[in-house]
Amino acid sequence: MSISKPPLALHPDRLFPADPKVRDITRELYGLVRDLPIISPHGHVPVEWLANDTPFDNPTTLLLTPDHYTNRMLHGAGGVDLSELGVPVGSPISPDQARRAFRLLCENWRYFRGTPVQFWFESEFHDVFGVRVRPSAETADEIYDQIADALTKPEFRPRALYRRFNIEALATTDDPASDLADHAALAADPSWDGRVVPTFRPDAYLEPARADWAELTARLGEAAGIEIDSYASHFEAMRRRRQYFKDHGAVSTDHSHSDARCEPLEPKVAEELFAEALAGKISPEGATALRRHMVFDQAKLAAEDGLVMTLHPGVVRNHDLEAFARFGADVGGDIPHAVEFSRALQPMLTEFGNAENFQLVVFTMDETVYSRELAPLAGYYRGVYVGAPWWFIDETDAIMRFRRSVTGYAGFYKTSGFIDDTRAFCSIPARHDVARRVDCSFLGNLVAEHRLTLDEAAEVAVDLVVSQPKRAFKL
Amino acid sequence: MSISKPPLALHPDRLFPADPKVRDITRELYGLVRDLPIISPHGHVPVEWLANDTPFDNPTTLLLTPDHYTNRMLHGAGGVDLSELGVPVGSPISPDQARRAFRLLCENWRYFRGTPVQFWFESEFHDVFGVRVRPSAETADEIYDQIADALTKPEFRPRALYRRFNIEALATTDDPASDLADHAALAADPSWDGRVVPTFRPDAYLEPARADWAELTARLGEAAGIEIDSYASHFEAMRRRRQYFKDHGAVSTDHSHSDARCEPLEPKVAEELFAEALAGKISPEGATALRRHMVFDQAKLAAEDGLVMTLHPGVVRNHDLEAFARFGADVGGDIPHAVEFSRALQPMLTEFGNAENFQLVVFTMDETVYSRELAPLAGYYRGVYVGAPWWFIDETDAIMRFRRSVTGYAGFYKTSGFIDDTRAFCSIPARHDVARRVDCSFLGNLVAEHRLTLDEAAEVAVDLVVSQPKRAFKL
Amino acid sequence: MSISKPPLALHPDRLFPADPKVRDITRELYGLVRDLPIISPHGHVPVEWLANDTPFDNPTTLLLTPDHYTNRMLHGAGGVDLSELGVPVGSPISPDQARRAFRLLCENWRYFRGTPVQFWFESEFHDVFGVRVRPSAETADEIYDQIADALTKPEFRPRALYRRFNIEALATTDDPASDLADHAALAADPSWDGRVVPTFRPDAYLEPARADWAELTARLGEAAGIEIDSYASHFEAMRRRRQYFKDHGAVSTDHSHSDARCEPLEPKVAEELFAEALAGKISPEGATALRRHMVFDQAKLAAEDGLVMTLHPGVVRNHDLEAFARFGADVGGDIPHAVEFSRALQPMLTEFGNAENFQLVVFTMDETVYSRELAPLAGYYRGVYVGAPWWFIDETDAIMRFRRSVTGYAGFYKTSGFIDDTRAFCSIPARHDVARRVDCSFLGNLVAEHRLTLDEAAEVAVDLVVSQPKRAFKL
Repeated sequence: MSISKPPLALHPDRLFPADPKVRDITRELYGLVRDLPIISPHGHVPVEWLANDTPFDNPTTLLLTPDHYTNRMLHGAGGVDLSELGVPVGSPISPDQARRAFRLLCENWRYFRGTPVQFWFESEFHDVFGVRVRPSAETADEIYDQIADALTKPEFRPRALYRRFNIEALATTDDPASDLADHAALAADPSWDGRVVPTFRPDAYLEPARADWAELTARLGEAAGIEIDSYASHFEAMRRRRQYFKDHGAVSTDHSHSDARCEPLEPKVAEELFAEALAGKISPEGATALRRHMVFDQAKLAAEDGLVMTLHPGVVRNHDLEAFARFGADVGGDIPHAVEFSRALQPMLTEFGNAENFQLVVFTMDETVYSRELAPLAGYYRGVYVGAPWWFIDETDAIMRFRRSVTGYAGFYKTSGFIDDTRAFCSIPARHDVARRVDCSFLGNLVAEHRLTLDEAAEVAVDLVVSQPKRAFKL
Repeated sequence: MSISKPPLALHPDRLFPADPKVRDITRELYGLVRDLPIISPHGHVPVEWLANDTPFDNPTTLLLTPDHYTNRMLHGAGGVDLSELGVPVGSPISPDQARRAFRLLCENWRYFRGTPVQFWFESEFHDVFGVRVRPSAETADEIYDQIADALTKPEFRPRALYRRFNIEALATTDDPASDLADHAALAADPSWDGRVVPTFRPDAYLEPARADWAELTARLGEAAGIEIDSYASHFEAMRRRRQYFKDHGAVSTDHSHSDARCEPLEPKVAEELFAEALAGKISPEGATALRRHMVFDQAKLAAEDGLVMTLHPGVVRNHDLEAFARFGADVGGDIPHAVEFSRALQPMLTEFGNAENFQLVVFTMDETVYSRELAPLAGYYRGVYVGAPWWFIDETDAIMRFRRSVTGYAGFYKTSGFIDDTRAFCSIPARHDVARRVDCSFLGNLVAEHRLTLDEAAEVAVDLVVSQPKRAFKL
Repeated sequence: MSISKPPLALHPDRLFPADPKVRDITRELYGLVRDLPIISPHGHVPVEWLANDTPFDNPTTLLLTPDHYTNRMLHGAGGVDLSELGVPVGSPISPDQARRAFRLLCENWRYFRGTPVQFWFESEFHDVFGVRVRPSAETADEIYDQIADALTKPEFRPRALYRRFNIEALATTDDPASDLADHAALAADPSWDGRVVPTFRPDAYLEPARADWAELTARLGEAAGIEIDSYASHFEAMRRRRQYFKDHGAVSTDHSHSDARCEPLEPKVAEELFAEALAGKISPEGATALRRHMVFDQAKLAAEDGLVMTLHPGVVRNHDLEAFARFGADVGGDIPHAVEFSRALQPMLTEFGNAENFQLVVFTMDETVYSRELAPLAGYYRGVYVGAPWWFIDETDAIMRFRRSVTGYAGFYKTSGFIDDTRAFCSIPARHDVARRVDCSFLGNLVAEHRLTLDEAAEVAVDLVVSQPKRAFKL
């Protein structure tokens, strides 16, 4: 069965249902959306890449090091030490090390079978870099050289790829105290006609239990031009920084805490807890209560300034404390846990859920809440959208489960459009392509089962790619 | 792609699997059950409609206003204010308002794509009212007029529709203090040969934390002809009212609390808590403990009088407190949450689960409990049935998930048969049709995969429609 | 539709997808694995059967009495009293009773439709015993006689069946204090060339809340040749008994508690709690804390001695207390409940999850944790494997859900291979056959949807049967 250098070929019908009739319908629907521009309202590509437009270093630091999807499997299944992959991002890495890391990816290729990593890499290798052999120990160097060679060419610099990938809008994720200088420079560059917008992510500033919270608070005040000595001034600083982000093109704020609860406190109680927190004397319970109050107030500000609020709770960050100590955050050791939305969001939604200006996009890694909580909430509340598959749930079967679970209770028009949420720039087209293929497969099935007419399905297919991300993220 | 007035046509194979061979088997199985009578052991159609048999007012108050499935999506996706739809039920509504509300439904038709609402309405419009154009802004008035016209005719009065829908038995949901006068009148009417039975729903009377609980208790005592001044007398009043319902044809009692727990208290403790509750001085914890005790005692009474107990916990009722303040209950803001059964039901089931006379049908909106808890419980305990898909879980994909999750551990013969649970009278045939189509699709797949023979599947298909609801609900 | 004695025939393509193209691929893949030897790393077949190789008594005590899958459905759906089935195992049963019990199975055959019990029995009846009529009231005696007759023949004695079933390795489940005499005798028998290994299952010894815990502790000490008067000596006794098991061929230890938590205590605290426990004075909270500490220490010992640790928490054992009082454990009244792994396992995994010698296989009956917790953990940690479908999750649809949920995040190579976990010896080939058929169906779909090439899928199909159980269980 083994051929030493099997070819890498991408079948045009990949991910489509096997049934010939369903496949024909799917192919027709996919034809309508395949070449539409990419809208990416949430992700982690560094804005400097596009602002500076400097060539990428090498295949490993471009494709492998920043991608924790890939790292974790090489570590977990292949037994590779993370340090061998250039982790953490930004570590100095010699040309030899880079080549060796890439070889580890190719040698352990079988571990990615059936995972989205395989699909993404095969698409990138084939479509972006012209690779025509399957990754393996035998072909690792050949593929590495081919990509390394491409990266020296002008058409593989960040802006050229942005255009080639047909990206219409791309959001980054930013610290509330950031001056957004790279965003401003890029936007002011007359030779640049893309759209890269910042996203306001205040998580750390809303966790009074953190050891560095007083310091963060001082930094926030400095950025806002306010001395923060009370919760009222903290709230005002948040308002100003949100406005600063909005003035720089931001359309949304992003929030991830251990739960989704948001409960307003009496002003007096909030001030007392805030004072304790600033003094470093707040109890764990007090810190949690204050955090939930502050998240509620982010919703209040969202109803005021109209920035879309995105929420994705329910993760044990840096689960492997030893790896965290060695490499820091974001190396693949984030593990989801169950999360509750129905009761947690009631205070926020009963107050703002139907307000004119308020929009909330809820993400989850806990698939059980799709049909039980999120779709019912999105079906009822005007402002609520179900975040389409993203982190961990952006692969074929998971996207299909998402549509099957959500559509019956919320239809298509209260879902957000696909979110790539990635640091791996070159995987963006492949990731969106997966979503388009699976959504069309789902729709193709509905048509084949006479649950939608073909013209209805065609309209939906296009809407999911074009109008839904714009509607959900006010883009 | 857009045609201004596309036709409304119902494909005979709708909802069937696309694979030609599976579809052929499915079609054959469906042919055996398509025209069988409807048994509806749990729902919310007002008995007065059938008792009085007066013509329906207009299309909106018949089809739209009472259907919170539809309201919630028009509100959540279409941004329609609930007051524009005639909510709450019984609000005065002018002919112009009724027409406008119906137009909102048709204009926002795309939001229902892929939801069961689309299937139900298309079936009702087409099969009940003879509509042949797809709902849209252009066709709204035309469809409205056609239905309004039909409603003036004798064959569209409630009893005529009951017969045309081929309903064999229909259960309503009733207050324990009700005199069931309309039920009695209908049953005594010699011109009526249908079967409409009441259902005993004591939820409010079992929640001592309610502000109106003392009042409810007094009302219960009055109806039972007992002065309720102790838990013992409350229990006796419940026994008598259950018997009254049974004498009026009831076959089941219906229970929905925030959790499924039922734990008997020592008689002395129950009496103490009951006295506190009557005095309006019970703590929240005490109220919960007393409620769980009273639910346990409903099971005790069920084992005594043989009324089937149905349980459907796990909902945040009236989640949107603002809408609740404006419109009252049942306007679409009920949001499910996770619920636990395995431990919660142990006291009840270890006591009554295998008793001769006891039957419990458990419903859920938390699909995770199907394979983990409900099917194992129903597979083991003689008296336990898994409630077939109902509220929120009565759509195509959810029904398929139900069968796929439950069948392996409980087979087909510990499931209840389809429950429409609806206030939307004209949607009853369409709702049961969905269940029949999906069950036959599931069975068709089993036959095609050689997991059942065709004759076994045929017997099951008929049993799910005929014998299972009768067995589970002692009809 | 009813034929009095329909034939029993097994279609060669059973459980394969209906689509002709997918089926062709599936058939090709299945051809590669159908006849490969069975590796069974976890189960409950009594070693005495193979050590003594005495003929089986009768069809009922061989096939029916020990199989709680079957018992529970006959009880729950058929209303059969468990005592009529010979429960508990080892009860004296007359020839007449045995025949009557078997008749109950056949008479109630329809209740097993769509369940794995039907598949297993049909396979056993047909392939092992040559039965050619479908079980029913009419055929019960005929089938009984046919099997009873077979059991008198040498080729139906335990060792002969072991060989005929093509079993390569079989694990039993054993008490830590056992002298493993039957294992030793079997291994020493020159006429035996199979492989039966014990499994160390210390659950009872790790539950200080048990009434018999002091007694169990004494028994453990006696077996280990240590006086246990401190936690340190308990720990040392565990170390010795594990080594004793390892010396007798054991490759794994097996653990099932109500939750998955494992949290090390300070040595002083552990000693104090241990002293309280020995004195019978430990509080429920203390007992739980001590149990979690002792489970953590089992992981510590696993990292030392290399025995694979398997974990399957989350069951209400003996849910029906009345049946438990009458018949004892393991009669079908075990009901799963929800369980949490992400946070529970953090102390263990951050300490040992990537250690050289440590391997953990995690099982669940709570399917929600597949994609949310187990696959992310297995994808990241070197030592973690997702236990493939087993108890309750070993049927067609559940196995398909398992692969669909896990593969995207952990691939195929961090799953354990199929676990039959059975006491029903003759069902072992059928159970493994289900897994092989469903895995090949899953792979066939991936190939048909161009998500894997045929040669990749073929390699995976074989690996799942051959190398994964060996890798996960160090066999």
